[in-house]
Amino acid sequence: KKDYRIAVLPGDGIGPEIMQEAVKILTLVGEREGVTFTCEEGRIGGIAIDTDGTPLPEETVKLAKHADAVLLGAVGGPKWDQNPGHLRPETGLLGIRKALGLFANIRPATMHSSLVDASSLKPEVVSGVDLIVVRELTGGIYFGEKKRYDGPNGEVAEDLCIYNEAEIERIIRVGFDIARKRQKRLVSVDKANVLESSRLWRKVAERVAADYPDVELSHQLVDSCAMQLVRAPKQFDVIVTENMFGDILSDQAAMLTGSIGMLSSASLAAGSFGLYEPVHGSAPDIAGQGIANPLATILSVAMMLRLSLGMDDAANAVENAVWSVLEAGHRTGDIATDRSKAIGTLEMGQLVRDEL
Amino acid sequence: KKDYRIAVLPGDGIGPEIMQEAVKILTLVGEREGVTFTCEEGRIGGIAIDTDGTPLPEETVKLAKHADAVLLGAVGGPKWDQNPGHLRPETGLLGIRKALGLFANIRPATMHSSLVDASSLKPEVVSGVDLIVVRELTGGIYFGEKKRYDGPNGEVAEDLCIYNEAEIERIIRVGFDIARKRQKRLVSVDKANVLESSRLWRKVAERVAADYPDVELSHQLVDSCAMQLVRAPKQFDVIVTENMFGDILSDQAAMLTGSIGMLSSASLAAGSFGLYEPVHGSAPDIAGQGIANPLATILSVAMMLRLSLGMDDAANAVENAVWSVLEAGHRTGDIATDRSKAIGTLEMGQLVRDEL
Ligand SMILES: CC(C)[C@H](C(=O)O)[C@@H](O)C(=O)O
Ligand SMILES: CC(C)[C@H](C(=O)O)[C@@H](O)C(=O)O
Repeated sequence: KKDYRIAVLPGDGIGPEIMQEAVKILTLVGEREGVTFTCEEGRIGGIAIDTDGTPLPEETVKLAKHADAVLLGAVGGPKWDQNPGHLRPETGLLGIRKALGLFANIRPATMHSSLVDASSLKPEVVSGVDLIVVRELTGGIYFGEKKRYDGPNGEVAEDLCIYNEAEIERIIRVGFDIARKRQKRLVSVDKANVLESSRLWRKVAERVAADYPDVELSHQLVDSCAMQLVRAPKQFDVIVTENMFGDILSDQAAMLTGSIGMLSSASLAAGSFGLYEPVHGSAPDIAGQGIANPLATILSVAMMLRLSLGMDDAANAVENAVWSVLEAGHRTGDIATDRSKAIGTLEMGQLVRDEL
Repeated sequence: KKDYRIAVLPGDGIGPEIMQEAVKILTLVGEREGVTFTCEEGRIGGIAIDTDGTPLPEETVKLAKHADAVLLGAVGGPKWDQNPGHLRPETGLLGIRKALGLFANIRPATMHSSLVDASSLKPEVVSGVDLIVVRELTGGIYFGEKKRYDGPNGEVAEDLCIYNEAEIERIIRVGFDIARKRQKRLVSVDKANVLESSRLWRKVAERVAADYPDVELSHQLVDSCAMQLVRAPKQFDVIVTENMFGDILSDQAAMLTGSIGMLSSASLAAGSFGLYEPVHGSAPDIAGQGIANPLATILSVAMMLRLSLGMDDAANAVENAVWSVLEAGHRTGDIATDRSKAIGTLEMGQLVRDEL
């Protein structure tokens, strides 16, 4: 009998409410599949700042390292917005990515047919969109040296964008591996006409491509990709890009679907270990009201089952349960066209479990 | 009687064809207003690589420096795509920006009512969009030190993003000045939760805001702005941001309108000097066929009249002529819903002149 340890980090805002529903789903999956999930809670973000004086306590890192996978809610809120850098919730997020070696961020943007109306794009432009942004998550300008000093023209600030071949190669391979299992089309996004790091990126992508003759590799400049995502998002299968560009493009791609409350993400280390979280934030404005959409977190559980625990059937079952509930017309406020009929967090969670 | 010197740099691809129409408009404006425009042609981009062995001949810089304003067509094409960095057309573009001190790139994205159908967004989301992206153009990661060397994990590539207070202040002021003449709402876009240069950016924006109590300043993170541009572009009046973010967001914003063949841009130095160019590229695939849309270049002439020459009335007249021609239903292929009725470059230019 299998026994998995899952580190559960609810975080701030709506994090705890939606995480509760995700854990209930996980428990049900365990019963059905004859697997035990031992969920251990840890603190990260604002709650950790308040309780432990740091957004990422050592204890949380240890907990995560000893787990088979991590489920994260969301971090942040106005309460900590004016804090100095080392006492900000996001610093905990960046810290855990680095501490756990989570170099590959996987962000699917899929347009579910029953939600086409939620998009700001025309139905014919977005229906059928099914793309994945693979973002490098532990390198580039996020983690390069930062400086601040006085100069003849006032203060000067510096951020270094730095990549080595090994860092680029491993994320490009993740991109190819994912594309191979899908439509076999990989678009590598860079700014090779301006940046040295992009020129190295492109060179490595070309070299690695030799190992994937069955996948079609093309290159797009980041500005051009931002245009194409608006103009014709269906052209994309898998996009692979560096940390900063991936931050922007994955959010842009997510918003194309119009239902960011439905999107989940995986942040993977080498091997099968990964951290799973919804794409939406901590939504402090609606926290505690019981109206947050738990589906992105529930879909994060499905991603975890598939990518870290190898439980493909269970993952599909969870995803199918979510689609069935949507097809039956149930909606939380964020994706409802008629808000008066919107249901709450608990109800939505229960409906998915009933369907399972 | 006024006499202006205009440096005309047609560049590559469709550049020469569309520039011809722009120059004809300028000549007509000169006759109407009793002003002489002396247009002097220079080479930049691919044509300069072929003729002079460099994408930006000294002669062209001199020509531009002695002019009152510069009109640029477009640069680039597949012929030069495999060239080493110093022999690429874009290098000429980056070079002239730096050589002329063109630190402020002004990119309006306006949804003209008769072109709403061309957008990939729903009409109710885009109709009425009227925003301007103000992009810092001579600093940041574009011009910071670049390195390439061998390390223990293969080759390493570096790009330094560097800004000083003076560079940030002057572009923020351009943003405020423009917002003041419009809806008085300025959104400063950065990534202050991660980047040191963004933290300095935000600090300077806050400081300068004190001089513009009539303008409402807000801050948005770049990922969040990329989302909001897709979700609800009408919320924006003026966006001000650094070079790399501006490259991405201004192209994204342009594509929202669906008619990039209509958009023009200004790149301004301190004082009234500026370079004006269409946002679309050199479109080598349709070059020489006489079907390119000259309207973005004609609208660049209008921007030049307004921003560098102080000829507001003439600028308005040119813009109104363009809108009238569109309202009468005339379209080039790129913006036509019925391509069989599309007109060519010369015809479109003539229609605008007739209207003038
Ligand atoms: C909170 C922030 C530091 C983070 C990032 O920029 O990576 C977030 O935007 C994300 O995409 O997960
Ligand atoms: C051609 C390229 C160097 C340039 C840039 O990135 O600035 C272009 O994309 C632009 O926006 O004018």
